[in-house]
Amino acid sequence: MLFAKKKEKNLSFETIAKALGREEVAVAALFYGQAKASEEDIKNLAKVLDISEQTLLSTEMTGMPDRGHSMEMPPKDPLIYRLYEVVQNYGQAYKAIMNEKFGDGIMSAITFSTKVEKETDEKGDWCKITLRGKWLPYSRF
Amino acid sequence: MLFAKKKEKNLSFETIAKALGREEVAVAALFYGQAKASEEDIKNLAKVLDISEQTLLSTEMTGMPDRGHSMEMPPKDPLIYRLYEVVQNYGQAYKAIMNEKFGDGIMSAITFSTKVEKETDEKGDWCKITLRGKWLPYSRF
Amino acid sequence: MLFAKKKEKNLSFETIAKALGREEVAVAALFYGQAKASEEDIKNLAKVLDISEQTLLSTEMTGMPDRGHSMEMPPKDPLIYRLYEVVQNYGQAYKAIMNEKFGDGIMSAITFSTKVEKETDEKGDWCKITLRGKWLPYSRF
Amino acid sequence: MLFAKKKEKNLSFETIAKALGREEVAVAALFYGQAKASEEDIKNLAKVLDISEQTLLSTEMTGMPDRGHSMEMPPKDPLIYRLYEVVQNYGQAYKAIMNEKFGDGIMSAITFSTKVEKETDEKGDWCKITLRGKWLPYSRF
Amino acid sequence: MLFAKKKEKNLSFETIAKALGREEVAVAALFYGQAKASEEDIKNLAKVLDISEQTLLSTEMTGMPDRGHSMEMPPKDPLIYRLYEVVQNYGQAYKAIMNEKFGDGIMSAITFSTKVEKETDEKGDWCKITLRGKWLPYSRF
Amino acid sequence: MLFAKKKEKNLSFETIAKALGREEVAVAALFYGQAKASEEDIKNLAKVLDISEQTLLSTEMTGMPDRGHSMEMPPKDPLIYRLYEVVQNYGQAYKAIMNEKFGDGIMSAITFSTKVEKETDEKGDWCKITLRGKWLPYSRF
Amino acid sequence: MLFAKKKEKNLSFETIAKALGREEVAVAALFYGQAKASEEDIKNLAKVLDISEQTLLSTEMTGMPDRGHSMEMPPKDPLIYRLYEVVQNYGQAYKAIMNEKFGDGIMSAITFSTKVEKETDEKGDWCKITLRGKWLPYSRF
Amino acid sequence: MLFAKKKEKNLSFETIAKALGREEVAVAALFYGQAKASEEDIKNLAKVLDISEQTLLSTEMTGMPDRGHSMEMPPKDPLIYRLYEVVQNYGQAYKAIMNEKFGDGIMSAITFSTKVEKETDEKGDWCKITLRGKWLPYSRF
Amino acid sequence: MLFAKKKEKNLSFETIAKALGREEVAVAALFYGQAKASEEDIKNLAKVLDISEQTLLSTEMTGMPDRGHSMEMPPKDPLIYRLYEVVQNYGQAYKAIMNEKFGDGIMSAITFSTKVEKETDEKGDWCKITLRGKWLPYSRF
Amino acid sequence: MLFAKKKEKNLSFETIAKALGREEVAVAALFYGQAKASEEDIKNLAKVLDISEQTLLSTEMTGMPDRGHSMEMPPKDPLIYRLYEVVQNYGQAYKAIMNEKFGDGIMSAITFSTKVEKETDEKGDWCKITLRGKWLPYSRF
Repeated sequence: MLFAKKKEKNLSFETIAKALGREEVAVAALFYGQAKASEEDIKNLAKVLDISEQTLLSTEMTGMPDRGHSMEMPPKDPLIYRLYEVVQNYGQAYKAIMNEKFGDGIMSAITFSTKVEKETDEKGDWCKITLRGKWLPYSRF
Repeated sequence: MLFAKKKEKNLSFETIAKALGREEVAVAALFYGQAKASEEDIKNLAKVLDISEQTLLSTEMTGMPDRGHSMEMPPKDPLIYRLYEVVQNYGQAYKAIMNEKFGDGIMSAITFSTKVEKETDEKGDWCKITLRGKWLPYSRF
Repeated sequence: MLFAKKKEKNLSFETIAKALGREEVAVAALFYGQAKASEEDIKNLAKVLDISEQTLLSTEMTGMPDRGHSMEMPPKDPLIYRLYEVVQNYGQAYKAIMNEKFGDGIMSAITFSTKVEKETDEKGDWCKITLRGKWLPYSRF
Repeated sequence: MLFAKKKEKNLSFETIAKALGREEVAVAALFYGQAKASEEDIKNLAKVLDISEQTLLSTEMTGMPDRGHSMEMPPKDPLIYRLYEVVQNYGQAYKAIMNEKFGDGIMSAITFSTKVEKETDEKGDWCKITLRGKWLPYSRF
Repeated sequence: MLFAKKKEKNLSFETIAKALGREEVAVAALFYGQAKASEEDIKNLAKVLDISEQTLLSTEMTGMPDRGHSMEMPPKDPLIYRLYEVVQNYGQAYKAIMNEKFGDGIMSAITFSTKVEKETDEKGDWCKITLRGKWLPYSRF
Repeated sequence: MLFAKKKEKNLSFETIAKALGREEVAVAALFYGQAKASEEDIKNLAKVLDISEQTLLSTEMTGMPDRGHSMEMPPKDPLIYRLYEVVQNYGQAYKAIMNEKFGDGIMSAITFSTKVEKETDEKGDWCKITLRGKWLPYSRF
Repeated sequence: MLFAKKKEKNLSFETIAKALGREEVAVAALFYGQAKASEEDIKNLAKVLDISEQTLLSTEMTGMPDRGHSMEMPPKDPLIYRLYEVVQNYGQAYKAIMNEKFGDGIMSAITFSTKVEKETDEKGDWCKITLRGKWLPYSRF
Repeated sequence: MLFAKKKEKNLSFETIAKALGREEVAVAALFYGQAKASEEDIKNLAKVLDISEQTLLSTEMTGMPDRGHSMEMPPKDPLIYRLYEVVQNYGQAYKAIMNEKFGDGIMSAITFSTKVEKETDEKGDWCKITLRGKWLPYSRF
Repeated sequence: MLFAKKKEKNLSFETIAKALGREEVAVAALFYGQAKASEEDIKNLAKVLDISEQTLLSTEMTGMPDRGHSMEMPPKDPLIYRLYEVVQNYGQAYKAIMNEKFGDGIMSAITFSTKVEKETDEKGDWCKITLRGKWLPYSRF
Repeated sequence: MLFAKKKEKNLSFETIAKALGREEVAVAALFYGQAKASEEDIKNLAKVLDISEQTLLSTEMTGMPDRGHSMEMPPKDPLIYRLYEVVQNYGQAYKAIMNEKFGDGIMSAITFSTKVEKETDEKGDWCKITLRGKWLPYSRF
């Protein structure tokens, strides 16, 4: 429904993200039911997609998101698999570097934001993904 | 052995990375046998770790790396799991955004680099991971 | 739908592939939703299958393909299992040979083409599959 | 042991393969215990590696190979995973094309040969893998 | 549909198999979509089941069978599990005996036939399954 | 140990089986610890292998066999996989035929025997496996 | 349908079991399609449930039961998991005791009956499950 | 060690169980490290096996048992698989009957005992397993 | 249906829990079909949700709950995964502490209650989960 | 080593926890390598266990803990399984209640503490586990 409307009005995630004042990845996550829309998001989405707020409020977008549910792991899609492979190959290296820089803890995936950027040079196009999360040290108890 | 030497000389990955002219994550990956050392790396490592080049050449560091082998998926380690969770939750959103920006293809995990940075503001410390890969469009055949 | 039309008009993948100027495997992949059709493909398919372009454009053929999704691994189908078995039995040997010939890297499955050929000699029929991918050396970072 | 000897004498699989009159992939498979050496192979290997035939005869190379045993599926190694991905993405397409060309049956992975070739053009290096197997139609019973 | 017709006409697989000049197991496999019917099979089936050839031709029986698809492994059904258990317990012993009798190779499951027979003696009924496949030696390459 | 002795004395399973008055598969199963040796078997094995009965009695051959333990499922070995595939493809057909012939029950894998035979005709060698088990109807309770 | 009828007429499995002259567990198994009803069972069920025999004959109850199919393992239901846990914890102990009492063989799950009883003492209620199966020694072959 | 001693002194679990005043299954569970020995058990075991109490106290028998650890599920051993199969086939039926008899709850596998008995009649030997556990109704909260 | 009614009347689980005299978690479990409603619960639910008791009695809420069925493990939802992670990381520590405090046994998950509380201090909000279960020592048998 | 020393000195986790000023669960987690010891912990542990600080510093206790690694999921140990079962049965209910109380977010398992308490009443002993974690709302981005 959301996807159909987006296609019908020929809107990119970039345009919608600007209208919502949010990152493109966050908006795509909303469309896939992997994030929760705030009231303000609903208002803005209603405008940009030309759907009534009432209709949007009745979708699962405003409820309790069932995150991760639609993703089969390991991912079969080659694009998503490459990200999975990065975790598989560099996971331990990331951990070692983070422990050296921050001590014993984790990078939060909740107090967290992420974005995708396109860069172009003489060798072609490059895709840059940034993950930024709050560092959480283990509590001492 | 490498880890022991690193501990003995009290070297951080940051220091070693500078000595090698490489990213910290890449160096940690070398230590975990997830990447291949070039001849130049061997020379520099020998110097900074105070090991003979001969000894380093006989390690698996210069052979064919068995990437991903030591990582159990899904990862049980909480830090690495958080990265896995990001792929699980945002994988489809990343794919949608990348397809919009680049067309049908993938971000390479081979023609690829990654780094970890620490940022601090009034809310505390933040961990920033950057993934940057060549965009590869599907060949038409 | 596509399969029904193909059957109705009694067209082989060979014929359709010629009409599209593409490999038979690529065309079959289009039919199974494992590849994305270009605008030109749509035009040619519309002609050869006698379907309106409009109808084809509304199929998932022109969207973001959900590659690999319909395949259960390990494959239960005996024909596909034999290919899986080749990877299982010769995977390490392929890796050793490729590392010897090219250094540390991978054969791309994206900048990639593949075809199937039939050969006949006095012993009977032989099936020849060719996989050809760009060699991607690991980036140094 | 075989690998150590090969390294010591600085022999490539290409050289060994020529000495044995076999394909490089087949020789690497022998080294990994995924294929059985014939008496002639043993003689030739003994010569080229400078090991006594007796020693080679006592290895598992001449016994009943335990094929596929050392490979974890899905493969974690990126190079081998790409081959697995080809089966996952194009498996159904291969099947459709083969059925069209040959009827109901399979391509044998036993009456079978395979090789790896390197090709270079202005875009860089390409890796070409050929799989060639006897076509086996299902028996009617 | 086929099963319904078979029940309605109160036909055993034995009767149908005789009408088709085939083994009972092969006929049951046809009914489960695990084998492909020849034109002659279609003619004979049409007669014995009293269905029009046209109807049979539109079933998946004449297409590309999706073998093995409907079977969950390990099988939960006790009867089928017992066969699975035979492979699990005696697999290595079969392999050792076959290697001794034939050399390095496999018994084909494609150039293959199988049947089930009932035998009765003073201890009760016995079920005898025969598997007969072409021996395929590994190609030397 | 048993295998070493067998190789040293250059004995085939066929020869040993004759000396024990048992099937070759059963003898190979003994060697793999998948079956239990009777006292008589021990005596005969001691003779044919030229090992003391005492030594044989101290092996696990006379204890409680840990059946199936050494077999990974699905089997990676191509020969054993073919048998697994037969169960996967024909399991339901076998069940249907057995139910028709015998009613509701199973073929025992315990009150059971099996053998492997070699047959040769103008097309080459054939491998014939026979499974024969007591039919056990479900108890009514 | 059967369950609805049972609820409508407010019948316990105990009552139905008495009407059929069978154990309660067997009757519940019939209701779940895990056992096959005899003609006599059909007659009695028709009476006690007030359904026509014709209707019952058209259910899957009289066909070839697809045993075990509806049960996910390990069981998520706490009651059924406790039974699974008993097998997990005491399986080896059962095996050791049975081998000591009976020799090398198994307890049949086909020539088999089972029942559930309630016992009450000052400590509360106890549930007693009895499994009774024919002992089957391994055939010598 | 325990098993060796038991074999050396040619003791059955039956004899040891009597010496300990416990069930045979419980004693076998002690031997497999699936249960905890009380001080009294240690005294009695020391006597019957002729081992010093000190030695027994240093085994894991007196520690925190790691229950279920050594059992792979689904069990590959045919004897233990039959018990697993009973849970798979009759699990839902047991649940239905217990809910009818007791209400909403479970049979405890902790406040629990079990035994194995041998019965013989004209049809042969029968194995009877009894499971008896406290009924635990779900707490209302 | 229950969720719709709850939303329509804008009731929190807290309000419903008070009306039923039960814990909020227990009430949510009722809504998800993970617990069984007593007759009194039905009466109170009917009142607070304004549904007829008859309607509620026809739901699965009063039947035999199919506990755990709807939960995929490991949980993909980040909130539920964190609880899973606590079991994964602290499971052995809990076991060691409980064995020290109570001896050999388990904490019942049946004679059990649980609740969720919110606490707020200067650092923000805290979530407190309490699990309280009867200690069950292993029976001696 | 730590466990041996603890046993030798007959120390409970309770005593050690008091000496360290920490929770018993945290101390047991240290012993299992699931948490990181601070310098202060090392000093106190050295004192209470009578081990040199140097020795403790060379253990993995002060390194980067490999959390969760030693736990197989689903847990086979009955005590730990009960906790897993609580997550499986009540996970959705916890999520619903937390979302109601806190909004969209998670309870941290890092900024987190947990403890085990024993309570006794006329019905026997009760085990109470408390989990307390910081509430983390999803970042808006």
